[in-house]
Amino acid sequence: MSEPSPTLDVIGIGNALVDVLCHETDAFLTEHNLVKGSMALIDTERASSLYDDMGPATEMSGGSVANTMVGVASFGGKAGFVGRVRDDELGDVFAHDIRRSGVQFETEPATSGPPTGRCLIVVTPDAERTLSTYLGAAAEIRPSDVSAALIASAQVIYLEGYLFDQPVAKEAFRAAARHAHDAGRRVALTLSDGFCVDRHRDDFLSLVEHDVDILFANESEICALYEVDDFDAALQHVTHHCEIAALTRSAKGSVVLRGDEVHVIDVHPVPGAVVDSTGAGDAYAAGFLYGFTNGHDFGRCGRLGSLAASQVISHLGGRPEGSLAELAPSVLQ
Amino acid sequence: MSEPSPTLDVIGIGNALVDVLCHETDAFLTEHNLVKGSMALIDTERASSLYDDMGPATEMSGGSVANTMVGVASFGGKAGFVGRVRDDELGDVFAHDIRRSGVQFETEPATSGPPTGRCLIVVTPDAERTLSTYLGAAAEIRPSDVSAALIASAQVIYLEGYLFDQPVAKEAFRAAARHAHDAGRRVALTLSDGFCVDRHRDDFLSLVEHDVDILFANESEICALYEVDDFDAALQHVTHHCEIAALTRSAKGSVVLRGDEVHVIDVHPVPGAVVDSTGAGDAYAAGFLYGFTNGHDFGRCGRLGSLAASQVISHLGGRPEGSLAELAPSVLQ
Repeated sequence: MSEPSPTLDVIGIGNALVDVLCHETDAFLTEHNLVKGSMALIDTERASSLYDDMGPATEMSGGSVANTMVGVASFGGKAGFVGRVRDDELGDVFAHDIRRSGVQFETEPATSGPPTGRCLIVVTPDAERTLSTYLGAAAEIRPSDVSAALIASAQVIYLEGYLFDQPVAKEAFRAAARHAHDAGRRVALTLSDGFCVDRHRDDFLSLVEHDVDILFANESEICALYEVDDFDAALQHVTHHCEIAALTRSAKGSVVLRGDEVHVIDVHPVPGAVVDSTGAGDAYAAGFLYGFTNGHDFGRCGRLGSLAASQVISHLGGRPEGSLAELAPSVLQ
Repeated sequence: MSEPSPTLDVIGIGNALVDVLCHETDAFLTEHNLVKGSMALIDTERASSLYDDMGPATEMSGGSVANTMVGVASFGGKAGFVGRVRDDELGDVFAHDIRRSGVQFETEPATSGPPTGRCLIVVTPDAERTLSTYLGAAAEIRPSDVSAALIASAQVIYLEGYLFDQPVAKEAFRAAARHAHDAGRRVALTLSDGFCVDRHRDDFLSLVEHDVDILFANESEICALYEVDDFDAALQHVTHHCEIAALTRSAKGSVVLRGDEVHVIDVHPVPGAVVDSTGAGDAYAAGFLYGFTNGHDFGRCGRLGSLAASQVISHLGGRPEGSLAELAPSVLQ
């Protein structure tokens, strides 16, 4: 290949969403047929009726892969994001926040069609979050948004499993992976969530085998992928199934595999109390990808991931606050 | 008078705003000619350029008097709010949040003209907040929004001094005060901020003397009103100038005056650390007005105000979280 050197570390491709968070009781989940801890896709009508029933809320930019790109930038990495918003107020909020976080974001907003996507998040008293996602304009991402030149501009492309829930977004996903490999770049994937894996298991198994260089999954996602109940059983499947796997296990830490090389990484101590566990996986991927694209070994990549996760769960919201670059030296010695 | 009994405790009339909060350094204030701790009105262009320069932000419903009405409802009081939003996404957010907080909100959104108003809030490392308000649709409130019947439906109307910054809103303010007195209702006013008092001192002095039954002000506002440097000097002026005055003094507590009756109220202990001091005055007014309209004596009204303020400053944002009704018994014994 004679591609120019990549100018970015990572480009993420995912759903551009604004989170709408409120606190409710467990009874609220039951009344609205919500499965605690899950992410359900909802249509316009359901989004409207659920929002009507939700209490007063706070809005902040979200989206799994978008959160990860903000984390990469917070470490001082060069990150880009591809995702679709509408030319409306929440779209302006999303674009403002991600750009002001130092992430390159050049996808044109849609000028017609559904409004900017949003994720209605119900936080129950046990700090669990239950997500209802109205994709809106986010579902409108298409292959032309991920040109060969754009994809070749980063060392790694990082893809959101959730994109498989929409046919056109899935095409964009596949086009991006193809461009990446044509340009000699690496392809990373997050499985997004266990229910998403259940919906697209065969596609994901084939992707992991043929297209994915770096796989991110938590315990329930990797178990869902191989239809096993036990983490170690999943571990035996994933070894040698893709080049690199970074598997997160909440309070049990994480496991990083690359061929025969294995790292078992403890969680990083959380400053203060755990306030909100969501975003932990996104932040872990940020630390890992920043480390990977900046020449760190896999143990350090895992420790950077744990560091980022510990920072994100110490406050409300899925994006890091403050500079992860300032914290990184403590885990790189 | 043969008006029917009021169905609401308090109706607030004020600017319907969504807060856009971000953290920045003191240098950011200097670069953007912002005076720390002040509220400046900004136009569309300035709102746009300032937002472009602000870091990633969080959106939550705000507005001084709107915050107070949410506080009254949180105590279990019956509150209503009059203010104008546009029929846009931030307008939907504002309406959702205030209604779901239990506040009656029936003002029709504007279907043309400027977008929903917003308050760009820069939080510096010393926890001070500097406000730049783009009024947008909030400035479009007009006398027809405050019908005699609506005003007569509450025991007290609570007016925002900031309304004086817009000629038509000011007319609505005066119409509401007139309707209230015609119906035998009480008129309460918050001076809003010291700079606002400087802009409208003569109007406010005349209002306090002739139209206001309950005056809310903090130390800098009451000193600005009477152009004195010292709290006690201001106290001498305000005594007998209006029927009831509730004056807040941050960590020094508050003073409640009614004729010769004086209450000096200490601050209520804050659960945990002080996170964000804004909204303290709005919350104090909520506790006081709830107490006043529910038959409590002035000492208890002040203690309810201090309780509400202590709750609001223990978290980010200007509206109470959780139920103030559950906390109230501790200060009512």
